[in-house]
Amino acid sequence: MPTPNPRQVAFVQAVLATGKQACSSASTIKLEGKGHAPVNIALSKYWGKRDTILNLPQNGSVSISLPGLGTDTTLRPLASDSSQQVTAQDRISLNGQQLDAHQPFAHRLSQFLDLFRTAEVPFFEVITHNTVPTAAGLASSASGYAALVLALDDLFNWQLPATQLSLLARLGSGSASRSLFPGFAIWHAGQSEQGLDSFAEALDAPWPDFCVGLVEIDVAEKPVGSTAGMQQTTAACALYSAWPAQAERDKAVIINAIQQQDFSQLGATAEHNALSMHATMIASWPPLLYWQAESVIAMQKVWALRQQGVEVYFTMDAGPNLKLLFLAAQKKAVSAAFSGLKVIEPFAKPDTQAAS
Amino acid sequence: MPTPNPRQVAFVQAVLATGKQACSSASTIKLEGKGHAPVNIALSKYWGKRDTILNLPQNGSVSISLPGLGTDTTLRPLASDSSQQVTAQDRISLNGQQLDAHQPFAHRLSQFLDLFRTAEVPFFEVITHNTVPTAAGLASSASGYAALVLALDDLFNWQLPATQLSLLARLGSGSASRSLFPGFAIWHAGQSEQGLDSFAEALDAPWPDFCVGLVEIDVAEKPVGSTAGMQQTTAACALYSAWPAQAERDKAVIINAIQQQDFSQLGATAEHNALSMHATMIASWPPLLYWQAESVIAMQKVWALRQQGVEVYFTMDAGPNLKLLFLAAQKKAVSAAFSGLKVIEPFAKPDTQAAS
Repeated sequence: MPTPNPRQVAFVQAVLATGKQACSSASTIKLEGKGHAPVNIALSKYWGKRDTILNLPQNGSVSISLPGLGTDTTLRPLASDSSQQVTAQDRISLNGQQLDAHQPFAHRLSQFLDLFRTAEVPFFEVITHNTVPTAAGLASSASGYAALVLALDDLFNWQLPATQLSLLARLGSGSASRSLFPGFAIWHAGQSEQGLDSFAEALDAPWPDFCVGLVEIDVAEKPVGSTAGMQQTTAACALYSAWPAQAERDKAVIINAIQQQDFSQLGATAEHNALSMHATMIASWPPLLYWQAESVIAMQKVWALRQQGVEVYFTMDAGPNLKLLFLAAQKKAVSAAFSGLKVIEPFAKPDTQAAS
Repeated sequence: MPTPNPRQVAFVQAVLATGKQACSSASTIKLEGKGHAPVNIALSKYWGKRDTILNLPQNGSVSISLPGLGTDTTLRPLASDSSQQVTAQDRISLNGQQLDAHQPFAHRLSQFLDLFRTAEVPFFEVITHNTVPTAAGLASSASGYAALVLALDDLFNWQLPATQLSLLARLGSGSASRSLFPGFAIWHAGQSEQGLDSFAEALDAPWPDFCVGLVEIDVAEKPVGSTAGMQQTTAACALYSAWPAQAERDKAVIINAIQQQDFSQLGATAEHNALSMHATMIASWPPLLYWQAESVIAMQKVWALRQQGVEVYFTMDAGPNLKLLFLAAQKKAVSAAFSGLKVIEPFAKPDTQAAS
């Protein structure tokens, strides 16, 4: 059996102890567990870890989940009986494709599952499907770990509250903590060393006009993953020292803007926040530039639209793609400027969404 | 008569008082004064003013002057007698073209000359030629104000030492303080409110193999000048708070690298410093992005060359163009990668320079 990190084990035990329902016990394990979670776009970014073992962030963040884009995961117990001795490992498939255990995606997933193995479930069968089109250029680890935690909760019948689900998802991938919720979510940075106060919660403030547009520049795998990128930035960027405080201020402004439905405040702060995060990468050594030439062209296009009175802002994650933020009234003008733009209306009623 | 800023007047008086030779007096004014100064490229950047009236920087900087590219200026007294009453202003020509007094270049120049008018020289005829090809994408205000101060010194026969010339040039344009010297120059930030300790001096360390390559992306006038850019950055960029200390550290590392002829240290620090300066602009609000799509392509080309073992670095100023730094041994490889690259060897003997 693999031996997971003792701090992670203690964290998971603490989360389960605080969250599991009285009714749950080993005997309630189901034949399979299912989970679905959406991807989310951070409006104020998570960049930098204060604890890499427990995935604790330097700063809080705010996000919007994108309905229809996410991950569906099914978990089944995989017995390690003598007849199956050869398969003494998880069986993981992604989008219908069986993955080798040494493949990075599968390896990381199995390391996370190490924290949840029991005598009854020594190994897992994991069937996961991303409903994020590969071409959307969206990170799927957020929806992936959120869906996995929901599937674990279902399989083991823990019936954990949202806070505990968010805590567990965070351990898998920081931004997954926010993917447990539809609409806007706030991930609190927390302060404790044990990490039990660093979870996300829903910001219940539906905004029917709110639109997100996905500008696809390049959907190839990133040359530097975001965990490595964060480490490079925090270790070798003098300007980073000012980031956590700015990120917390931006978070507060964006929460207020959401509550007031002040789109100008939200858009400007989100764009400034994203550019500031990229600035910390650019000011690292060696430099970390996720932008491509086309990213700059797209930014210039956004700025030109604003000068023409079309209120649209952008945010960017650790990659070259832009995510546009605008209200429904500007949808036509923005779509005209960015051909092939995929527009998502997170709060639209299903029938409206289908028609858009 | 225009009334210049009293702090600037006091500064000029103080500089002249500490620097003028005993022999100089009003009677020694010549019929004309001439000055020539080179452009310079900062290896660690000047970005941010602690005093906008006296042009005092937040941090020191180091530069390399580019021989053959610069400004030649001739000054002549212009009497304001009754017959010439209609021309009660300076007569300024740039590259053979007479400029209107309201044109920004002429207006700024006349404001600077306000500090030096006397009863004998109420107005000036200014004939200035930039030997910087317009297409080189190099700022000419540094060489321009350095040449102008040299021409004033010649016209008024002050015979000022280099320190005083540098102080006066700084008042015209910060980076002009460094253009008084060939080769490497250090501009000390200084600490005093009067600004008499903020001047440049030569760093006498010839490096015959040292090359600068000019990559021209766009030579159109910048949409935001560097003074306005600095103000925007210092006023509205949280990350800027960490810049002055980094810039001073980078300056010290680069000076040491020059003295040790440690090219790797110099190149890496110069590139990191330039990217960090641009990061402070990118993290401003509204964002200030001097890069164009082609700038990103050129950066990626530099990084690819380094990965292939060709040691080349870049620096960038408040514009989209890259200036490459490399040693003569890499000249062929770098020139092959950047077609049309203009290569300058600041320490090459004139005949070598001509042949290169």
